[in-house]
Amino acid sequence: MNAKLPRGVSKEQFASAMNAMRKVVGNQWVIVDDNPLIAGYMDTYSAAPVSSTAASAAVCPASVEEVQQIVKIAHSHRIPIWSIATGRNFAYGGPAPRSAGQVVLDLRRMNRVLEVNTELGYAIVEPGVGYVDFYNYMQKHKLPYWIDCAANGMGGVMGNTLDHGVGYTAYGDHLLMQCGMEVVMSDGSLMRTGMGALPNSTCFPLYKYGYGPYIDGLFTQSNFGVVTKIGLWLMPEPPAFKPFKVQFESEDDLYQATELMLPLKINMIIPNAAITTHLLWEASLFTTKHEWSSGPGALPQSTLRRIAEKFDIGMWNFYAALYGMPEVVEENWKLVEATFQKIKGAKIILGEDRKGDPSFDYRARLMRGEPNLTEFSLLNWVGGGGHINFSPISPASGDDAMKQFHMIRQVCEKYGFDYIGEFVIGWREQHHILMLMFNRYDADESKRAHDCFAQLIDDAAAQGYGEYRTNLHFMDAIAETYNANDGALLKMHRRVKRALDPAGILAPGKNGIWPIGETPETES
Amino acid sequence: MNAKLPRGVSKEQFASAMNAMRKVVGNQWVIVDDNPLIAGYMDTYSAAPVSSTAASAAVCPASVEEVQQIVKIAHSHRIPIWSIATGRNFAYGGPAPRSAGQVVLDLRRMNRVLEVNTELGYAIVEPGVGYVDFYNYMQKHKLPYWIDCAANGMGGVMGNTLDHGVGYTAYGDHLLMQCGMEVVMSDGSLMRTGMGALPNSTCFPLYKYGYGPYIDGLFTQSNFGVVTKIGLWLMPEPPAFKPFKVQFESEDDLYQATELMLPLKINMIIPNAAITTHLLWEASLFTTKHEWSSGPGALPQSTLRRIAEKFDIGMWNFYAALYGMPEVVEENWKLVEATFQKIKGAKIILGEDRKGDPSFDYRARLMRGEPNLTEFSLLNWVGGGGHINFSPISPASGDDAMKQFHMIRQVCEKYGFDYIGEFVIGWREQHHILMLMFNRYDADESKRAHDCFAQLIDDAAAQGYGEYRTNLHFMDAIAETYNANDGALLKMHRRVKRALDPAGILAPGKNGIWPIGETPETES
Repeated sequence: MNAKLPRGVSKEQFASAMNAMRKVVGNQWVIVDDNPLIAGYMDTYSAAPVSSTAASAAVCPASVEEVQQIVKIAHSHRIPIWSIATGRNFAYGGPAPRSAGQVVLDLRRMNRVLEVNTELGYAIVEPGVGYVDFYNYMQKHKLPYWIDCAANGMGGVMGNTLDHGVGYTAYGDHLLMQCGMEVVMSDGSLMRTGMGALPNSTCFPLYKYGYGPYIDGLFTQSNFGVVTKIGLWLMPEPPAFKPFKVQFESEDDLYQATELMLPLKINMIIPNAAITTHLLWEASLFTTKHEWSSGPGALPQSTLRRIAEKFDIGMWNFYAALYGMPEVVEENWKLVEATFQKIKGAKIILGEDRKGDPSFDYRARLMRGEPNLTEFSLLNWVGGGGHINFSPISPASGDDAMKQFHMIRQVCEKYGFDYIGEFVIGWREQHHILMLMFNRYDADESKRAHDCFAQLIDDAAAQGYGEYRTNLHFMDAIAETYNANDGALLKMHRRVKRALDPAGILAPGKNGIWPIGETPETES
Repeated sequence: MNAKLPRGVSKEQFASAMNAMRKVVGNQWVIVDDNPLIAGYMDTYSAAPVSSTAASAAVCPASVEEVQQIVKIAHSHRIPIWSIATGRNFAYGGPAPRSAGQVVLDLRRMNRVLEVNTELGYAIVEPGVGYVDFYNYMQKHKLPYWIDCAANGMGGVMGNTLDHGVGYTAYGDHLLMQCGMEVVMSDGSLMRTGMGALPNSTCFPLYKYGYGPYIDGLFTQSNFGVVTKIGLWLMPEPPAFKPFKVQFESEDDLYQATELMLPLKINMIIPNAAITTHLLWEASLFTTKHEWSSGPGALPQSTLRRIAEKFDIGMWNFYAALYGMPEVVEENWKLVEATFQKIKGAKIILGEDRKGDPSFDYRARLMRGEPNLTEFSLLNWVGGGGHINFSPISPASGDDAMKQFHMIRQVCEKYGFDYIGEFVIGWREQHHILMLMFNRYDADESKRAHDCFAQLIDDAAAQGYGEYRTNLHFMDAIAETYNANDGALLKMHRRVKRALDPAGILAPGKNGIWPIGETPETES
């Protein structure tokens, strides 16, 4: 019946586990791989074959109690389970497990907004709450708070937070704004962190640290438990909101723009994630690569210039917003405007200047927490849907921005890919996001994309740059770059893994954390 | 030679360990208990006998390498070591270990500010850097950043951060502003968290989460490793700073004040920790209890009124500050002023109104990150120096503030103590800090203080209130109140303890985390 089985699990053992799980969630909520629905758990965007991360089954519990029972069954039958929230982090592997045969624990049916407190400004959500659900909930109840969403409006609140994702309002550092967690441990027991461990406390979503070690971060980008609830702080709707864009004429302007932005960020004049997108990130909203070139390889600089001119796009395009009382926003605006006027040729653009511009429009919506799917236009750039994100972190300095830009573009071009990137300045650093686009139906191109990504990891690490998040297929490779002090950090992760999940059933291999005795090399 | 030995350690084993440690740090830096300097490691403020937490020795390494060697020796000789940074958290136990006989690992000699980066706004400090050292460093180098200090200016940057302490500028949530950690593990190996695990990365103090689980919080209020460095984000010196005070006439005003403050906090109009102190917190700056009463018991309400009148102190006194560009500060001030004018009899006070007022003065200094010792005047209120802090967390609501105030004052008065408290509003919750003052030289009074504290823990827990931090003697009692889901959280802490410190040598019993087989009950 099953083409794939979890590593080390016999047909009989697997069948018996599935039967036990069916008794918990009902027959229709255990999807094994003769059911066409299993296709919904494939990673259809990566450069590697879908089969390499094909699940043997998916199980969809509807409640915390069901999650506990499923985990207990997985534990007693030694079945590896890979939990997903909404499973929409497409550039990083989507709903697929780390290795073929793992059973997906799909939490999408648990999709309730459990509470929104308008006095104290927090929410408690279940794993399956998507951005659109959350946004609609706020709208429906006319609540005076915004949500903060990722660019992928289909994504989910909890999954993105646990994966250290970022958004675009002043509450864009999702993990920073998370408060309180409920976790099912590998033996099926239930734990609440922080104040949630105190019976009758109402402070679960209010105070992050509780008493004793602050452990919430342990359950992010890891496999130490199955998170079933999180608390989130909400951003109050500001009296005034002023989104703006600055277009830069030259690729070299990135240096000065970054240097000028940093003080605005550090001084909280610009309180949200300051984004600087390269020309081609924007261009896919207006055109496709095929309209400019039919041959292989990256578009030449001359073509980039023509695209910039035709669609009035900057070689770099900066987006941010001001929030607060109208008078305060206007005071801050004076400073922002004066700052960017220092850059020769910089074009400062407000909403009223660009009515109907889809690029300004979707960025402004993101900066006020309105989920949308506009950025998916990137998938049309080359067609064929393949994309993986390469996401190194660097200091928010002009030197680092230029160095990363040149280094990464050079590698992309070597492998025949366009550089499609953006920089996102956070508190003190910047995320550089390369969207590596390729045609998944072209085996050679997919192979090149995979190789390109592997080289990027190595080249970045050689310069002291590391990635903050990655696709399933590169989790081990990146974990291995964080190897200072004789691999002390990964050793620590593995020790904690053994302590909290001695049977090694929870998401083996997530972010390089394998159970003892199981290594990437022995992967089936 | 030693009056005390660590639990389960023989005289010979201990002597041999001390000799090995002397070879690492030099004879003069191993202080055993026939050396009068050992008195410097006593908890001289608690209500319990000093002997119950008297160290058998203290060892003072001067470098990370020495810390590693000391930890290795402790590991191989099975000597429990209690690490302290500056050891000045007096209300919570100071430099003393959790139980008698533990060896204090005193990191005060490691007191360098290793780096301050003025472009990116961060610092990296060693454990022994005190607030005054840090402040002087910034002044000496004329750096355009502020530090954020606790009210105890003698305290230390790292110790306070690891203990989830708070300060008074907009960067007052110390753990939130911490980024990057270096830790000596129980086997003496060295680990860096986050981006510090990537060789040659410059992002150690810039990006908190690194790759994989975010584990820094694990090393706070715990005993899983010895932290030897932390990165900190620094607050840029704002162009304008406007500290203010609001005095309230009636104790019942606390309700309305809290309700009105919360939106100002949530909307970041007031970006720093908003403090509301009770009359007697302030009064100790001007008078002592003996001037008003020679008998036992708490001062009656009528006397409180007379004190308020004589010194022009509010029954509650609110302190906060505005920071930013002058125009922005003035816009925000209009809103703040209008808000507090809604409370009948509220007196709004600016710096120029209160020149020479020590109470306004020291609060203003704290709100601009200037360490001072003014708050120690509280120790004179009853004399005899004893004080322990009871610190429950609640929602930042008027109802919770009033309920906690009445509940806690009632218990204090039952045991004959004055209520001396303050509320500190953070992001969404408030810390309520009761300063329980008593004469340590009066055995009966000390016993009453101890019993009062124990009852406060129970009464608070019964109402769903838990403490965020505590004195050595109450660590177990409070850990036991965080017992939801069959004690799941504490079980998890103990599992991690076993994984990361299998020999149980690091700070046994810290915040209720004992090694396997060792329990508070079996304490010597």
